[in-house]
Amino acid sequence: MTVAATVGDDPGAQLLREIREQPVSLLRLLDHVDDYARVARTARKRETTLVRMVGHGSSDNAASFGVYAFGLLPGWSAMRDSTSLSVYYGAELDLTGSCVLALSQSGRTPDVVDYVERARARGGLTIAVTNDVESELAAAADEVLPLAAGAEHAVAATKTYTAQIAALALLAAHAAGKGRAYADGIRATASLLDDLLPVLERRAAATAVALAFVGRMFVIGRGPEFATAREISLKLLETCRVAAEPLTATDLAHGPVAAVDGLFPVWTIAAEDESLPAVREAAARASAAGATIIASGTAADEVEGAAFRLPVPRPPLPLLAPLLSVAPGQVMAWALALAKGLDPDRPNGLSKVTLAR
Amino acid sequence: MTVAATVGDDPGAQLLREIREQPVSLLRLLDHVDDYARVARTARKRETTLVRMVGHGSSDNAASFGVYAFGLLPGWSAMRDSTSLSVYYGAELDLTGSCVLALSQSGRTPDVVDYVERARARGGLTIAVTNDVESELAAAADEVLPLAAGAEHAVAATKTYTAQIAALALLAAHAAGKGRAYADGIRATASLLDDLLPVLERRAAATAVALAFVGRMFVIGRGPEFATAREISLKLLETCRVAAEPLTATDLAHGPVAAVDGLFPVWTIAAEDESLPAVREAAARASAAGATIIASGTAADEVEGAAFRLPVPRPPLPLLAPLLSVAPGQVMAWALALAKGLDPDRPNGLSKVTLAR
Repeated sequence: MTVAATVGDDPGAQLLREIREQPVSLLRLLDHVDDYARVARTARKRETTLVRMVGHGSSDNAASFGVYAFGLLPGWSAMRDSTSLSVYYGAELDLTGSCVLALSQSGRTPDVVDYVERARARGGLTIAVTNDVESELAAAADEVLPLAAGAEHAVAATKTYTAQIAALALLAAHAAGKGRAYADGIRATASLLDDLLPVLERRAAATAVALAFVGRMFVIGRGPEFATAREISLKLLETCRVAAEPLTATDLAHGPVAAVDGLFPVWTIAAEDESLPAVREAAARASAAGATIIASGTAADEVEGAAFRLPVPRPPLPLLAPLLSVAPGQVMAWALALAKGLDPDRPNGLSKVTLAR
Repeated sequence: MTVAATVGDDPGAQLLREIREQPVSLLRLLDHVDDYARVARTARKRETTLVRMVGHGSSDNAASFGVYAFGLLPGWSAMRDSTSLSVYYGAELDLTGSCVLALSQSGRTPDVVDYVERARARGGLTIAVTNDVESELAAAADEVLPLAAGAEHAVAATKTYTAQIAALALLAAHAAGKGRAYADGIRATASLLDDLLPVLERRAAATAVALAFVGRMFVIGRGPEFATAREISLKLLETCRVAAEPLTATDLAHGPVAAVDGLFPVWTIAAEDESLPAVREAAARASAAGATIIASGTAADEVEGAAFRLPVPRPPLPLLAPLLSVAPGQVMAWALALAKGLDPDRPNGLSKVTLAR
């Protein structure tokens, strides 16, 4: 598996290059499988069965997946913790029994570093999950898990996000004594992704043209795919200036469906799992309100009445589906930005490393 | 304090009646202060210092406040738990040491009832926080805490939401040995709200006309006011068909700011607390991108360059600010729906009790 030839310096070239690099990046992560095994052993030994994940943007989206990875594999409770509660408001929580996963591409996000320093002082087992093992964050934490995605230059994260999903799955799997099965699963999934990306690139252009005038969208996912809904929304927001909001299937019915009409497309991520009936129901509800439905995910074909379908193959382990199901959103963000005359490599007012509070 | 005279059967009359009823509803909650004291004692005795909150829509928004109430008062970790992880995916979590707060106006939300039954079987201390103490949810839980907001008829929740905020503050305060101070604080805040509402009703119409053509909006809040940002977004979505998305100050900088332009207003909830510099910074960033800024909250006057300001008074205890700061959003949702020719009492495709999965 090799990264496709250079895509030049056209608008979006950087983003497309990193989207294409993801299968190779996932294999690089697997070179560090021993680190994941060791940290999982440490967490088990210290009985830190409450996992607190912190991170912003795509890292926080990946954390939504972690809730399911830890809940379903070792049976640990995992939460997206509030950084501001500790860092700005000075809450005095007892963190013995907690394992902190600090997710940051650059390892330089100031309040994440600050959170880790406080958490370590309060007895938490702190683990930096980052691309830069020499970063400030890595230095602040007890343990470091490399994402090994390689330098990411596009402002919109892609390969770092999938590396974070794989990292969380791998750590949770090791904690549950299933490390080897998941490493094999990630390897096989990387290969499926390598086959999928060129297909998506060819198909995205037609869908993008049809969506070029869309200003707002809901993206529906549930369970492990809620992370995917959040990440696809963020890609569309930052590269295409679409007000895309992620919702669970249930969220939609509890209010937002009232805003839907024919000019408000709903993107549904349907997975072949226990949440499928609820997700199909949500799509039907949005469709009845007049929304154009875009269906993706491993069960894209099970969503009735979709105007556009971007299916992905089933991975060997169902929990790894988010590694594939985010790809239609990444490729669509690239294609839709170009269809709108925007350069996805130069989003308004953003820089790669966000030092904002 | 008495509820203002009937507002008739005009469009939005039901919603306005319940908005106006909130100060009285908060006082009714205080009639049950002994229940809150008793349940807090039980939780302390059982050492359930991990609080798991479940609920949908406005109830889930109130839970965002609970993270801060429990974190800052008794120093307990509180999380918005995933219902689907247990209910659909069957995760086997150990809930001894957990206290479950199930938030539901009606007490009939099916997956919340299901979650509570499973949590109780797994050793959690389960507490129903509901308007209906005879409901299925109340029967399923170990303990019941009445919201006492009285029957809520408008589809868009208002008095139930503020009752939930008060309930979470009161329970957290009792757990921290500060029950009396908070009961007094809620009483005083109810009185401030009673004075505030008529002012907001008079001021909202002018702002509503100026926003009548807005299709999308970000609502920024941080810390305890993130719950307010979520709840105001939901009111605008369900009654005004505005694609309003709640973001923390940090979220905005990590991507979404790229979508902002002159047609994308940003509503900022600024509180007189530790998060104010970050919130002001976020408003400045949105303003630099061309957004029209609406500023509300106890520190609305501290947000530079706001086109519209809807300030609220400071409550006697800073943590109670969300009881006041949600009111501009509730009143604006009512006024904006009317300005757009919509009936806020009849949102498209919604019913009062949502049985959707």
